[in-house]
Amino acid sequence: MSASLASEKCQVCRPDSPTVTPDEARGLLADLPGWEIVVRDGMDQLSGDFEFANFAEALAFTNRVGALAEEADHHPAITTEWGRVNVRWWTHSIGGLHRNDFIMAARASSAA
Amino acid sequence: MSASLASEKCQVCRPDSPTVTPDEARGLLADLPGWEIVVRDGMDQLSGDFEFANFAEALAFTNRVGALAEEADHHPAITTEWGRVNVRWWTHSIGGLHRNDFIMAARASSAA
Repeated sequence: MSASLASEKCQVCRPDSPTVTPDEARGLLADLPGWEIVVRDGMDQLSGDFEFANFAEALAFTNRVGALAEEADHHPAITTEWGRVNVRWWTHSIGGLHRNDFIMAARASSAA
Repeated sequence: MSASLASEKCQVCRPDSPTVTPDEARGLLADLPGWEIVVRDGMDQLSGDFEFANFAEALAFTNRVGALAEEADHHPAITTEWGRVNVRWWTHSIGGLHRNDFIMAARASSAA
């Protein structure tokens, strides 16, 4: 996981902001082990799975990711189960992936 | 939502405990407005969607459901998004739905 990516600032995102290109996505993913791009509801999303010893630790991570999301005002879908959390980032206003999503993924990995 | 269902005790569940019959499921669902049975990973799951004003309120509900789950030692999958939470209950040890799942769904509705 890239500490420098995690420390980048998220940019204000507008409907005409560009989605990342496939080449950019490949380069950014190389810095984000364990993350992959999935298609869901017709949109590219950045998905990461995290394992924990029990439900309480999984939920604690969910809350840490939630705090990061509130801080950046950029919010993922977080699925919390016993011993497992899945986090998915995408940028609704552009219908796909912005560099911000990769920055947030790096921050989530730092919080795991 | 049935207050009496929410106040039932969960039973200890063993691999040979019976799944609910389709008739039982229909009767229990009648007491659980907004919940539906979905098939996921090849198993029946009881799924409910809840709406909130923002991310923080959604995450607060996730934590309330998490507390109910820990108390009963029966854990759902909870997907938290901005303004929305999906909760899915099923009983892993029997590969489907037990009466416990309907009890937990009623408790989650009470916590919304």
